[in-house]
Amino acid sequence: MAQRPQTEHAKRRIEEASPLAADELRNIDAYWRAANYLSVGQIYLQDNPLLTEPLTLEHVKARLLGHWGTTPGLNFIYAHLNRVIKAHDLNMIYVTGPGHGAPGLVANTWLEGSYTEVYPNVPQNAAGMQRLFKQFSFPGGIPSHVAPETPGSINEGGELGYALAHAYGAVFDNPDLIAACVVGDGEAETGPLATAWHSNKFLNPACDGAVLPILHLNGYKIANPTVLARISREDLKNLLVGYGYHPYVVEGDKPEQMHPLMAATLDQVVAEIQTIQHAARSQGATPCTRWPMIVLRTPKGWTGPKEVDGKKTEGYWRSHQVPLAQLADKPEHLRLLEEWMKSYRPEELFDGQGTLRPELAALAPQGERRMGANPHANGGLLLKDLRLPEFRDYAISITGPGAELAEATRVMGGYLRDVMKLNMDNRNFRVMGPDETSSNRLDALFEVTDRTWMAKTLPEDEHLAPDGRVMEILSEHTCQGWLEGYLLTGRHGLFSCYEAFIHIVDSMFNQHAKWLKVTGKEIPWRRPIASLNYLLTSHVWRQDHNGFSHQDPGFIDHVVNKKADVIRVYLPPDANTLLCVTDHCLRSRNFINVIVAGKQFQPQWLAMDAAVKHCAAGIGIWRWASNDQGSEPDVVMACAGDVPTLETLAAVDILRHHLPELKVRVINVVDLMTLQDKEEHPHGLSHKDFDTLFTTNKPIIFAYHGYPWLIHRLTYRRTNHKNLHVRGYKEEGTTTTPFDMVVLNDMDRFDLVADVIDRVPKLGSTAAYLKQWLRDKHIEHKQYITQHGVDMPEVTQWQWGKSGG
Amino acid sequence: MAQRPQTEHAKRRIEEASPLAADELRNIDAYWRAANYLSVGQIYLQDNPLLTEPLTLEHVKARLLGHWGTTPGLNFIYAHLNRVIKAHDLNMIYVTGPGHGAPGLVANTWLEGSYTEVYPNVPQNAAGMQRLFKQFSFPGGIPSHVAPETPGSINEGGELGYALAHAYGAVFDNPDLIAACVVGDGEAETGPLATAWHSNKFLNPACDGAVLPILHLNGYKIANPTVLARISREDLKNLLVGYGYHPYVVEGDKPEQMHPLMAATLDQVVAEIQTIQHAARSQGATPCTRWPMIVLRTPKGWTGPKEVDGKKTEGYWRSHQVPLAQLADKPEHLRLLEEWMKSYRPEELFDGQGTLRPELAALAPQGERRMGANPHANGGLLLKDLRLPEFRDYAISITGPGAELAEATRVMGGYLRDVMKLNMDNRNFRVMGPDETSSNRLDALFEVTDRTWMAKTLPEDEHLAPDGRVMEILSEHTCQGWLEGYLLTGRHGLFSCYEAFIHIVDSMFNQHAKWLKVTGKEIPWRRPIASLNYLLTSHVWRQDHNGFSHQDPGFIDHVVNKKADVIRVYLPPDANTLLCVTDHCLRSRNFINVIVAGKQFQPQWLAMDAAVKHCAAGIGIWRWASNDQGSEPDVVMACAGDVPTLETLAAVDILRHHLPELKVRVINVVDLMTLQDKEEHPHGLSHKDFDTLFTTNKPIIFAYHGYPWLIHRLTYRRTNHKNLHVRGYKEEGTTTTPFDMVVLNDMDRFDLVADVIDRVPKLGSTAAYLKQWLRDKHIEHKQYITQHGVDMPEVTQWQWGKSGG
Repeated sequence: MAQRPQTEHAKRRIEEASPLAADELRNIDAYWRAANYLSVGQIYLQDNPLLTEPLTLEHVKARLLGHWGTTPGLNFIYAHLNRVIKAHDLNMIYVTGPGHGAPGLVANTWLEGSYTEVYPNVPQNAAGMQRLFKQFSFPGGIPSHVAPETPGSINEGGELGYALAHAYGAVFDNPDLIAACVVGDGEAETGPLATAWHSNKFLNPACDGAVLPILHLNGYKIANPTVLARISREDLKNLLVGYGYHPYVVEGDKPEQMHPLMAATLDQVVAEIQTIQHAARSQGATPCTRWPMIVLRTPKGWTGPKEVDGKKTEGYWRSHQVPLAQLADKPEHLRLLEEWMKSYRPEELFDGQGTLRPELAALAPQGERRMGANPHANGGLLLKDLRLPEFRDYAISITGPGAELAEATRVMGGYLRDVMKLNMDNRNFRVMGPDETSSNRLDALFEVTDRTWMAKTLPEDEHLAPDGRVMEILSEHTCQGWLEGYLLTGRHGLFSCYEAFIHIVDSMFNQHAKWLKVTGKEIPWRRPIASLNYLLTSHVWRQDHNGFSHQDPGFIDHVVNKKADVIRVYLPPDANTLLCVTDHCLRSRNFINVIVAGKQFQPQWLAMDAAVKHCAAGIGIWRWASNDQGSEPDVVMACAGDVPTLETLAAVDILRHHLPELKVRVINVVDLMTLQDKEEHPHGLSHKDFDTLFTTNKPIIFAYHGYPWLIHRLTYRRTNHKNLHVRGYKEEGTTTTPFDMVVLNDMDRFDLVADVIDRVPKLGSTAAYLKQWLRDKHIEHKQYITQHGVDMPEVTQWQWGKSGG
Repeated sequence: MAQRPQTEHAKRRIEEASPLAADELRNIDAYWRAANYLSVGQIYLQDNPLLTEPLTLEHVKARLLGHWGTTPGLNFIYAHLNRVIKAHDLNMIYVTGPGHGAPGLVANTWLEGSYTEVYPNVPQNAAGMQRLFKQFSFPGGIPSHVAPETPGSINEGGELGYALAHAYGAVFDNPDLIAACVVGDGEAETGPLATAWHSNKFLNPACDGAVLPILHLNGYKIANPTVLARISREDLKNLLVGYGYHPYVVEGDKPEQMHPLMAATLDQVVAEIQTIQHAARSQGATPCTRWPMIVLRTPKGWTGPKEVDGKKTEGYWRSHQVPLAQLADKPEHLRLLEEWMKSYRPEELFDGQGTLRPELAALAPQGERRMGANPHANGGLLLKDLRLPEFRDYAISITGPGAELAEATRVMGGYLRDVMKLNMDNRNFRVMGPDETSSNRLDALFEVTDRTWMAKTLPEDEHLAPDGRVMEILSEHTCQGWLEGYLLTGRHGLFSCYEAFIHIVDSMFNQHAKWLKVTGKEIPWRRPIASLNYLLTSHVWRQDHNGFSHQDPGFIDHVVNKKADVIRVYLPPDANTLLCVTDHCLRSRNFINVIVAGKQFQPQWLAMDAAVKHCAAGIGIWRWASNDQGSEPDVVMACAGDVPTLETLAAVDILRHHLPELKVRVINVVDLMTLQDKEEHPHGLSHKDFDTLFTTNKPIIFAYHGYPWLIHRLTYRRTNHKNLHVRGYKEEGTTTTPFDMVVLNDMDRFDLVADVIDRVPKLGSTAAYLKQWLRDKHIEHKQYITQHGVDMPEVTQWQWGKSGG
C-alpha cells in the first residue's frame, strides 16, 4: 500500500501529459461510441439499424446470441490504437484474446473500411449496417468469435489461452511489427497464457518486433470473478513485474478521464518500445529487456445497462453475454435496449445514409496501416517460398537393404541445418521444441544457429544467443502457439516433440485445423500459409528409460478426426524416406503435416531413388523383400513406421528361411492416408489399387506404429478388410528394452510369424515345428533381458537376408 | 538489488537460529549421503552394492538409464522433511514434480523402511540393496519416474506440469495434511504449473491442509538453462510474491551451510503454516492468505562429478542424466564412478550387512508418519463410500415418450445437490469445472454449497465462500489436477466441462489412465480409488452461439484408446438415464467414466424403471418405438447420444407414417463400450447378443453423437458390420441453429430417412416420392433459418407419434 500515492501521482502526471486536445478527445470518444453502437446492434438487431423508427420486436433477432461484456473494452482499445498508429505511423496488429470479441472487431473493421473491402456485400452505409447487424451469430452469417472470417485476426479467441503466444509468434523476425495483444482476465487463468508471459525472454528487440500486452481486467468470467481482478493491486503488479514487464495501469469508468489516460499511456509505452528497439539496434540487445505493458481495468459491459430487473449488470458478470434478454416478454427491456443504443447518440456518429461522419472516419489509419488490413494478419500475402537445399544430397548411401544403420532424425538434422542456412537472410524459418532439439538428434542446426535466449547467460552456456533461431521452452503450448503465430503471419517452421507429449497441444491443434479448414474452403481473401509441420520422435517404441508415461502414439488418431483437406500423416521407415517427406512437407501449404520418425539407430532400407519413388506413391510393395513376384502372394505383410518395418522384415526373413515356398508380399506405408478411401481423403487409394496391393482374399498381417484399431478405422470399407489382422501398440509398456516393447505388444517378429502361421492355411508340419520354436524364442528373450538387461544379440545384430532366424 | 544486503542479513539470521546441533547436522548429512549413495547405485550398479570389492565392469549395468541431475536435491529435501515431521509430528506427503525422480524417492523410502514393507523381496540389507540397484530401469524392474510403483507417490512426474495442482487437490478437506511439493524449474515452465500457483486462492486454512511448494532451481533442463533460474532474483521474488506466496530462499552448494539454513527455514515455514491455520481455525479465514514457500537453489547434479572429460558437469545440464557413461570404453570413468560413490563414505552409513546404521535410521519418522507410508498417498486406504441419495427420487415423470421436455443436466444438478448435502459432514465430495457449473445447469448445487473462493469478495458476489465445495477456475488443467489429487488421496468428485475443451486435458487424462491401469493390475498394495467422473456437456450439437471452435466430440475417441479395464463411456439419451448413469459412476472405483449429456431442453423418453433397465443393459431395443415385434426388422435404426436419439426417433416417426409396412427396429446405446467385443472390453456384447440385436444382414442406420468412424472402429468385427451405416459429426459447423447443425452433418431426420430408403430394397414408388419430399424439406429448412434465424416449428415442435412428418 505504501506505493499507492506514488502510483497515483504517476497516473496524474500521465493524464496531464495527455496528447489529446479537447476536440480529439471528443472525436475519439465518438469513434468509440460508434463501435459500441455497432456492437450492440450486431447482438440485437436485424433491422432498423439507425433507429430511425421506434424500436419494435420485429427489428430484433429471434435468437439473441452474443457477448457484450468484453466488447466495450475491446472497442476502447481499438480506437486508441488507431490514434497511436496514426500518430507514430505504426505497423500494428490486434490480437484479441477475450472470447466472443467479434462484435467489437467486426464493428471496428467496418468503421475503418477494411471489412467492406473483403466483404463488399456489407457496404459502409445503412443497408450495409443492417447486413452487418443481421449476419452476426445468425444462420449463414458470421461467428461470434474473432474467427478467420474477421479481417485482421490471427487468433479466434474461441478457445482461450493462446493470444499471447500467438502475438509473440507474429512478431518474431518482424522488427517493424507491434502486436497489441489483449489478454482477458478469464483467459489469464489458463495455463498456456500463464506461462506465455515468459515469451519475453525469447524476444530480441534488435531483430524482432514488439508485443504490447494489454491485460484487460473487467473482473468477471461467465459467472465468477476472475482471479487477477481479485488479488491485491500490489500482488498483480508484482506478478507482472516478476514476469519481466513494466506494467502501466489504466483504470476507471469515466470516459472523459479514461481517454486522456489511455492516450498518454499508449504514447508512453510506444515511446518505451521504440527506445528499447533503438538501443538494441544501435548498441546490441541486453538480457531480460523489461518491455512495457498495460493493465486496463474497466467495468465489464462498460456503458451498457447499469441494472436490469433491479440487478447490477454493468461491472458485473451479468453483462457477460446478452444483458437484456426476453424482449418479447418484457417490453421494458425493449425500451431499455433502445435507450441504451441511443445513449451512444448515433445521429452524431453516422449521417442519414448510415455512413460514419468524415471527421470520425479520419481517425482511422489508412490502407495497410488499418489493423483490419494489415497484411501480417493475412500471412499468406507475405509468404515467401523457403529456399530448400536438394534433399537428395543428404541421402544415406545404401549398399543393401538394412546393411547400414543410421539415426533418421540426425540425418534430417543435417538437412534442416541447411534449410536454416539458406533462409538465414530471409529470416523466415524457425524450429520449435520443448528442450528436445539435441535430444531429438537435430543438433546439426547448432552448426549454423543457436537457441534463442534473451535471459541471462553464463560463460559455460552453449548455443544460446539473442538471434538464435531454434526456440526451446519447456512448454509445448508455448512452442505450438509461437509457431502458429509465426505461420499465420507468413513464415515457415517445424515443431519437434516427444510423441507422447504432443497430446498436450491436442486442443490447440484442433483450433488450428479448424482455422485452416475454414480459411481454405470458405474465405478466398485469406491466402494460403505454410503448413504446420510436426516431427514426432522419441516415439512410443523407444522409451527405454522413460517408460509407460512416455508411450502414447494416439496423436495420429486425434489428427485424422479432422478434415481430410487439412491433415497429412507420414511414417517414413528410414532416413532417406524421412528426408523426402520433410522436403515435401516444407513445400506444402495450408496443411498440418505429422511426421513420425525415430531417433535411434535403425537399419536403413531404401536408397534415395527408391525412397523418392516410394514416398511419391505413399505406399508400395517392397519387391526386394517379397517373393511373390509374378503371382498372388499367400500372405501380405504390411507395415507402417520404423519399428514395425524392422519387425516385419525380420519376420519375413524368418518366414523365407523356414517356409521358402510361402509367397510373401511386403507392403510399406509411408503416407498413412493412402489407406483410406479416395472419397474420404485426397491421398486415399482407389479401391482397385488397394485390392491390387492387398489382394481381395489373402491374409494381411499389418504391423502399425500406433494403436492398431486406427488401421481398421481407415480400411473398414476395403474389400479385403475381413482378412486384415493388425498389430500395434496396445498400451503395454514400461522401462524395458526396445525388443521387449514389441514383445509386450505382440508386434515382435516372432509374433508376426506366428500370426502368419495362424492365418495361412496348409502350412504343414514345418509350421507346427516353427510355432514351438517361436514360443521358445519368447522364453529365451525374457530370460535374457532379465539376466542381462539388454536385448539378445540375435535380435540386436539381426540383418536382413544374413541370418534366417 | 537494493534489497540484497537485507536478504543476506535475513539469511544469516535464519542460519544462526538453526535448530541443528553439531551431531544432528552430521547425522542429517549422513542420511542425505546415504540417499545419494543409493541413488547413484540404482543408476549404475547391478552388483557389489556396498563396494566391498573394487568396482569392475561386471558390477555395472549394461544399459545406464536414469537421471542424476535432480536427485541430490530431492534427497536433500526428503532428509530435511523427515526432520521437521519428527520435530513437529507432521502429517506430510511428498509430491515430486521433477521428472525421473525415482532414484531419490526409492532410496529414501527404502531407508525409512516403507519400501520394504510393500516390497518384502527388497529387504533392508545388502541383498536387498543389490536388488534395489539392479531393478531400477531394468527389464522386469521399476520405472525411472516416481510412478505408482513408488510408495508415497501421487504424482509420477513423467509428464511435467501437474505436481502443484495434485498437491492442492490432496490437501483440500485434509486439514491435518501438508503436501510438500517439489516443483522443478523445468516443470515450472509448463502452462499447467504456471497457473497452478494460483491454487492458493482456493485453499481454506480453516478446513483444508497446506501445500508447501519448494521450487527447486537447479538451473537446467535436458540441454538448456531454465527460465526461472536465469531471471533476476528480484523478478523471481516478485513473481512468487505476485502469485501470493511468501518465498524463503535456500541457496548454496556447501552442505555444511545448506543443512542449517534448510533446517531453520523449514522450521520457519512450518511455524508460519501453523500460525496461519491456527488463526483461521480460531478466528475465521481471511482472504488471500500469504502462504510460505521455499526456493531451493542448488547445483544440478550436486555432489556428483565436477567435471567429466574436461567438461563442467556438476552445476550444469550435463548432469541431467548419467554424468559418467561409456564405462566400458573409458576405464577412467569407472574409476571416477567408484570415487564418486565412495565420496559418500558408505562405510559410515551402512553396517557390514548393508543395513542403515541405527543412529541414522532413527532420523526417519515412524509408521504412517513416514512419507512412503502415509495413507494419504495410497488414498484407497482412506476411501469412504459416498452417501448417495436414491436417484429414482429425482426422476422426471414421463406421461409418454417425448411428451415432456427437460434439461438433463439440470435434473442431474438436483441429484448432485443432495449428494453434496449428504456428504457435507464427511467433506469428501467436490465438483470441479472451469466457470461452467451454472452454465452447465448444475446450479442446484448452490442451494447447499458455494464456489470455493479465498480471494477478495465484493458485496454483490453470489455463491462465493471460503468453504464452498464447487471449484471453478478458468483452467481445465487445474480442475483436472485438483480432482486427480483429491481422488488419489481417497475422496470423490466430478468434473463438468464443455465437451470440446476437455481436449485441453487429453494428456493429463492419459497419465491418470496409465496410473489406474498400473495400480489396478500390477500393484496390489495400492487400494482402489474413486473413479474420475467427467460430465461433458455444452456438447458439439448445441454450440448455437459458440460455433465451430466449440465443436469437438473427439475426447471419446481419445479415451477409448486406453485400456478397456479403466475406461467407460456413457451417452444417456435423457434425464432419467443420466441420473441412473451418474449414480452408477459415483459408486464405481478405479475407472475413468465419461458421461456426455446435453444441457438444453430435450424430449424425455424413458420413465425411471425403463431407464434403470436400459442403463443396466447399456444397450437395448426400444420396443415402443419399433414396429418389428415378433419378426426380423427391415432396418435397424440405432442411436447413441441425446441429439442422435431425437433425430432417429423423428426419422422413425416419418418412416412409420409414410411407410407403415416397413419394419423398423430402434436400438439405443447408453454404454458405448457394449458395441465392442466382449474380448476387447468387459462391457462388450457377445457376438451372439450383438447379432440378435442388430441382425446379421439388415441395414443398420446408426446416428452417433461423435465422429462416425468410432462406431466402425468399435464394431468392425461384428457379423453385420458390412451393413452398418453411421452418421455423426464430420467436422461441419458454425454459429447456426440446432437443427441446422444436424443438417450440416447429414444426421438430421430427413437424411436418416433418406439413408433408409437408399439401403432397404423394394420400397416402391412411395419411397421415390418420399425422397423428393425429404429434399424439399431441406430446402424449406435452409430458407426458413436464413429468414427467421430460428428453426422451423415443424422441427422444434415435433413430438413422437403426434405428427408423422
